[in-house]
Amino acid sequence: MSDIKKEKIALAYSGGLDTSVMIKWLAEKYDAEIVAVTGNLGQQKEIENLEEKALKTGASNFYFLDLRKEFVNHYIWPALKANALYEGIYPLATALGRPLLAKTLVEVALQEGCTAVAHGCTGKGNDQVRFEVTFGTLAPELKVLAPLREWEFKSREEEIAYAQQHSIPVKATKDNPYSIDENLWGTSIECGVLENPMNEPPEDAYTRTVSPEKAPDTPYVFDIEFQQGVPIGLNNERLDGVDIIERLNQVGSEHGVGRIDLVENRLVGIKSREIYEAPAATILHFAHRELERLTLEKTVFQYKQNISNEYANLIYNGVWFSPLRSALDAFINETQKPVTGMVRLKIYKGNVILLGRQSPYSLYNEHLATYTSDDTFNHQAAEGFIHIYGLGLKTFSQTLEKKVPKKRSISVKSVEAKKVTFNV
Amino acid sequence: MSDIKKEKIALAYSGGLDTSVMIKWLAEKYDAEIVAVTGNLGQQKEIENLEEKALKTGASNFYFLDLRKEFVNHYIWPALKANALYEGIYPLATALGRPLLAKTLVEVALQEGCTAVAHGCTGKGNDQVRFEVTFGTLAPELKVLAPLREWEFKSREEEIAYAQQHSIPVKATKDNPYSIDENLWGTSIECGVLENPMNEPPEDAYTRTVSPEKAPDTPYVFDIEFQQGVPIGLNNERLDGVDIIERLNQVGSEHGVGRIDLVENRLVGIKSREIYEAPAATILHFAHRELERLTLEKTVFQYKQNISNEYANLIYNGVWFSPLRSALDAFINETQKPVTGMVRLKIYKGNVILLGRQSPYSLYNEHLATYTSDDTFNHQAAEGFIHIYGLGLKTFSQTLEKKVPKKRSISVKSVEAKKVTFNV
Amino acid sequence: MSDIKKEKIALAYSGGLDTSVMIKWLAEKYDAEIVAVTGNLGQQKEIENLEEKALKTGASNFYFLDLRKEFVNHYIWPALKANALYEGIYPLATALGRPLLAKTLVEVALQEGCTAVAHGCTGKGNDQVRFEVTFGTLAPELKVLAPLREWEFKSREEEIAYAQQHSIPVKATKDNPYSIDENLWGTSIECGVLENPMNEPPEDAYTRTVSPEKAPDTPYVFDIEFQQGVPIGLNNERLDGVDIIERLNQVGSEHGVGRIDLVENRLVGIKSREIYEAPAATILHFAHRELERLTLEKTVFQYKQNISNEYANLIYNGVWFSPLRSALDAFINETQKPVTGMVRLKIYKGNVILLGRQSPYSLYNEHLATYTSDDTFNHQAAEGFIHIYGLGLKTFSQTLEKKVPKKRSISVKSVEAKKVTFNV
Amino acid sequence: MSDIKKEKIALAYSGGLDTSVMIKWLAEKYDAEIVAVTGNLGQQKEIENLEEKALKTGASNFYFLDLRKEFVNHYIWPALKANALYEGIYPLATALGRPLLAKTLVEVALQEGCTAVAHGCTGKGNDQVRFEVTFGTLAPELKVLAPLREWEFKSREEEIAYAQQHSIPVKATKDNPYSIDENLWGTSIECGVLENPMNEPPEDAYTRTVSPEKAPDTPYVFDIEFQQGVPIGLNNERLDGVDIIERLNQVGSEHGVGRIDLVENRLVGIKSREIYEAPAATILHFAHRELERLTLEKTVFQYKQNISNEYANLIYNGVWFSPLRSALDAFINETQKPVTGMVRLKIYKGNVILLGRQSPYSLYNEHLATYTSDDTFNHQAAEGFIHIYGLGLKTFSQTLEKKVPKKRSISVKSVEAKKVTFNV
Repeated sequence: MSDIKKEKIALAYSGGLDTSVMIKWLAEKYDAEIVAVTGNLGQQKEIENLEEKALKTGASNFYFLDLRKEFVNHYIWPALKANALYEGIYPLATALGRPLLAKTLVEVALQEGCTAVAHGCTGKGNDQVRFEVTFGTLAPELKVLAPLREWEFKSREEEIAYAQQHSIPVKATKDNPYSIDENLWGTSIECGVLENPMNEPPEDAYTRTVSPEKAPDTPYVFDIEFQQGVPIGLNNERLDGVDIIERLNQVGSEHGVGRIDLVENRLVGIKSREIYEAPAATILHFAHRELERLTLEKTVFQYKQNISNEYANLIYNGVWFSPLRSALDAFINETQKPVTGMVRLKIYKGNVILLGRQSPYSLYNEHLATYTSDDTFNHQAAEGFIHIYGLGLKTFSQTLEKKVPKKRSISVKSVEAKKVTFNV
Repeated sequence: MSDIKKEKIALAYSGGLDTSVMIKWLAEKYDAEIVAVTGNLGQQKEIENLEEKALKTGASNFYFLDLRKEFVNHYIWPALKANALYEGIYPLATALGRPLLAKTLVEVALQEGCTAVAHGCTGKGNDQVRFEVTFGTLAPELKVLAPLREWEFKSREEEIAYAQQHSIPVKATKDNPYSIDENLWGTSIECGVLENPMNEPPEDAYTRTVSPEKAPDTPYVFDIEFQQGVPIGLNNERLDGVDIIERLNQVGSEHGVGRIDLVENRLVGIKSREIYEAPAATILHFAHRELERLTLEKTVFQYKQNISNEYANLIYNGVWFSPLRSALDAFINETQKPVTGMVRLKIYKGNVILLGRQSPYSLYNEHLATYTSDDTFNHQAAEGFIHIYGLGLKTFSQTLEKKVPKKRSISVKSVEAKKVTFNV
Repeated sequence: MSDIKKEKIALAYSGGLDTSVMIKWLAEKYDAEIVAVTGNLGQQKEIENLEEKALKTGASNFYFLDLRKEFVNHYIWPALKANALYEGIYPLATALGRPLLAKTLVEVALQEGCTAVAHGCTGKGNDQVRFEVTFGTLAPELKVLAPLREWEFKSREEEIAYAQQHSIPVKATKDNPYSIDENLWGTSIECGVLENPMNEPPEDAYTRTVSPEKAPDTPYVFDIEFQQGVPIGLNNERLDGVDIIERLNQVGSEHGVGRIDLVENRLVGIKSREIYEAPAATILHFAHRELERLTLEKTVFQYKQNISNEYANLIYNGVWFSPLRSALDAFINETQKPVTGMVRLKIYKGNVILLGRQSPYSLYNEHLATYTSDDTFNHQAAEGFIHIYGLGLKTFSQTLEKKVPKKRSISVKSVEAKKVTFNV
Repeated sequence: MSDIKKEKIALAYSGGLDTSVMIKWLAEKYDAEIVAVTGNLGQQKEIENLEEKALKTGASNFYFLDLRKEFVNHYIWPALKANALYEGIYPLATALGRPLLAKTLVEVALQEGCTAVAHGCTGKGNDQVRFEVTFGTLAPELKVLAPLREWEFKSREEEIAYAQQHSIPVKATKDNPYSIDENLWGTSIECGVLENPMNEPPEDAYTRTVSPEKAPDTPYVFDIEFQQGVPIGLNNERLDGVDIIERLNQVGSEHGVGRIDLVENRLVGIKSREIYEAPAATILHFAHRELERLTLEKTVFQYKQNISNEYANLIYNGVWFSPLRSALDAFINETQKPVTGMVRLKIYKGNVILLGRQSPYSLYNEHLATYTSDDTFNHQAAEGFIHIYGLGLKTFSQTLEKKVPKKRSISVKSVEAKKVTFNV
């Protein structure tokens, strides 16, 4: 008689139906010992009794790891410094959490001597890619299992039947029609009526924010302090990163800030419709960008727009652990040196309104910008500047003119046409 | 006895103090005949009695040209299709108007046989560059005069004294502390207390919008229809472009939509602080972008982000009449072919909220995106996809591993460090 | 008794071992009728007796299509106008041929009423992707078969045994150690000793060029004429595109021009080592670029560098039939309007040397550029230009200075350090 | 009686006619003491007797500074690591030298207590901008003088007359028809017959390279070793950077390597025609890039192409001392960590031919790339990869199809047209 399992699998465990069923299913199918691993990224939903539940369902061991500080300092702040907003708008909450969860799973797996890692993502989403690319990068020797892509259940009902058959506890509560993922940096909501992009999201789809209409009539005014691109305090109080985000999530939610409704391009070739709630992320990205406007030299500010897009794509596409990120981070960190200062904001019924910004490294020079008698700008220099700045276009225009007879009339078309069409 | 002037100057005339004084000053200084030219770009301020005023002040001729349709169709719509927002946010109202005014001035100058063109821009702004580069491109043979850069007046008081001395009518009203430029696409406001970026803009700085706080408690819901990227109607009513913009400016202003407070990078090497009011531009840019999310193929959508930045910079920097714009327009117009459909919005106390979007060219495929039993997505394909998608990073990781001994522990640092640092 | 097959498969047929065996293998495995299709893209190797061979091997029908003109006009010239060189160097000969072959196969398949298309590419190369993405885009209803990914043969020997068993004619000649693909625009060579990137390519790996060492001692000088970016003649003789390429391949090969040795990044996640021979492509890309230097306005020239990279990646990655290409083509075609003129070259022992270039649209203005007394450039304008051009950096520097005490010494470090490091 | 001058000017001094005349001219015009400063950047032309000459001409002090090591380590190597080639080809020799010379001049000026700095650049070139932007950034308090933009001499003859009148020694030798600038990284040659871009550069225009035709019949084969992107040795011999460049200039020149003939876009709005000789730069850029192909992860390699263009533009445009360069350098240095290894080259009659490359960090994996039985690549994964990779385009195609009736014929146009045109 032998109780030694051939396989040992570390499973990313949430306590929901899918990963609960997975403990049993994996154990049976692979004759394996299962180590359940849950990471706390600041999700709001209750995470109590997870250990008991996991063990009762058949896990041989359970890990609960508080990853919030690491999440903020090593994942969220770099993304904030990068102004990383996927397709210009999504602050990447879920996408930033996945590589950290995957890394944590790998670490537990290596410590526990596991032969495989498993996750509960579906076969058509981005998250499977984010998990598996991270696994392959950090520990290519581990097998990767994705039960949702291979198991036999065709519906939720079949899963529940399997659970009951195997005495896996299943919550009796009515099923939420939405699929939700949540962490400190935001909530992602999809499915249900949201699958039709002409449907306005029903109020019950939102999990933490009130609607602008229901937000208080009185605005909230506050200051955010940054040091080298990183938030370090609120209203003159120095705070830990987790605290800053939690407080801003709190007030932002109350004031209806941070709802996003998006048809986005997934990595796996389809468009999907998602709604997001990200109060703190919305506020902090706004404030950070405004401080950059004040403190970044023009060419740095403008070139960084490209870097931001690349960085956001990289996070979304699951390649967080990559040499490209290292190189982009190096660029970004260099730019953030002067991004120190304070931004004053007002939030009011869904709006984030800028009231002021200041920095010891402000490049705004009132004496150069002013139109009062304090003006120190050299106005005469402009003539020479414009002459040389426009010389290339003037030459271009004169060259074409030699070839194309100029029609002189007051018609728009004639003059414009001269510039843009010609036959050779 | 000869009354023939050697010079004839076409002046961009607004009827304000500066350009009124300029008529006399230019006539005297250059012994020139002055042709005053005013273009209507949809500015709100009264433009009556301009002809009488110009002629009384000494102009030999006056042109008033209604440029609104041309402005919308040939300047605003191309910028909208391009998603052109300078530094990610400013919809470029003034910047778009300048090349059209400059072109119009050139057309009048050529028709009138002028020897020079003149404008009333200062020596430290962007507008002088936009005017003069356009002049140089469209009619390099014309001289360019910028009295504000060269005349002798050191203050507004000296200008007023000159005006009174030469019987130039000057409004008795108290001077506006702000410098304002306005057209259909938005209003730019600068100077006064705004020159300190920690000062919140006072309510009296805004010219057309109410504050979100003072906006109605009842939201306004409406549809915008687009055809190939161009707005063609509201609420199922087909409308002219000028009408669409005017209506949206009206309702947007009432609902507190479109205020922007910005420290921006000027072309001439300084940062300046501007506030903008652009209700219609804010609404239309938002709606257009959301329709693009639905209808643009992913790589087109993402590559167009770079094109948008370049296009916005080009407008801001005054090089509208340029072969680069022609080439970018060609790219953009090709992308806009499927950007046809409808976007439903709600505006409420400063917010623009998306309620729905639809298009006959929607690339959102509910059967691929759904998590219901209608799912037609091939989940098994994902495994192969991920394998090959992540293969490069896995190889990268394995290559480094051979060189750098792997530290296996649960510490974040150890695993992360392995990926990003190594000595050679 | 029925002879009606359920399936009918159009196969991209080359007459080599793999696709010959495939005719039989597909027919048996899928109980299918096979239509063999060969396209002539200008490959040098003999393509005679293909029809006889295909039918004898079991094909029910055979198509031979001369695609050379279409290849040049609709694939090669667009890539040339785009300056499309993958990773800065590879002119994309094979990559450009694949979408045309795939489209042709689809057209035959649709005309013949086929149920599937099949190709002979391996499971680790780029070409399978190029074929199958094109199939999926142009005719998603057709099944796609890739026998090399699924059949049972583990080695060339097993394939030959199968061939002999099924009376498929196999050439008796010794097997070429290299894998070669060839068309008008160039030859790709891989495998064998080339798989070690420290191995110098042996002379016998090259198929059409002589080595620079063996090339003639006498250079060859010639002119290439372009119209709107497209080559239209040589040495003042107007020629068809196919002729131009064939003639340049001929003289280029004789003079040792166009060898490329490359470790490149494949689409499928690996690096591979390839050598290429592309005499005409090398010469024409060089000449085209030099004519662009003369005729493109500066910002167009510089922005087009990004467009070129994107276009090259798109071709390499098999997404020729895509809306992104349509949009990039629109950009590129607009830029090519003035790229008309002549480039004079000398080729000599592997070198392509520029002797001169001229164009009616040349933006080179000798009167502006000259240092002789013909100079018309306004030297004084430079002072104003530099003042404003450098103002942002000066402000940046002064801002930091206020914060960081300046160390005044002649040491490099001290002054440089001041600029780049500071604590906040 | 006072001999104290009000002004003290540090002049970038070369010993040629212009800067010799300038010593006297500046002293007189500004009643100033002149400090002549010459930096050695590895120029070949004799720099002896400069001190004697400068003092004799009227300078109060003379500095000769050997800047070669600093030039190589802090200017050339960063540009090499960046693959910085302006407009894809010019290795930026002069452009890299200017900021170092300007910085040196500032350091001397500050040490000597000067009130101004002066240079001998003309008013239409790039170099004035490079000098003056650097002055303004490093020491905005110093006045900047550019005598060539303001003095009264209209011709070389007038300058010579002035020189003779003031006993300034002028070389009797015939004037070189070309304007030449030279340093370790290359030589720039312009003017004379080169001003017509149809003129082939005459042999006497080249200063250090032989023509490919006159180069030896025997090739030279050698190895270059790199560490983290920096050349550290040749042929297994560890060498100082200056030595490596000097040796490669030597052998490269003998073998006709490194001639470039270019119509380029100047910063000041004109195109100019330049020829360059840069043997070492040509060889090292080639070798470095090939080593990157072997060692950089694909997305890093491809994204770095954009960084390279930006970096090259930045150098060319004179903004070396800038926060954008600091940020780009941070990116680049991160990417260079694995760029360690060896490249074997053959140079022969103008060609640089790659014979092999190797690295401990090579990402080329023969087991993945091979077509032999050692193949470890997962061929089956390709099917899933292609399915998902092509899904977006397939959806795009199907969406259009619903709208546009498909024409099924074998004509190219019909199928292609379906993809790219449609009416909405």
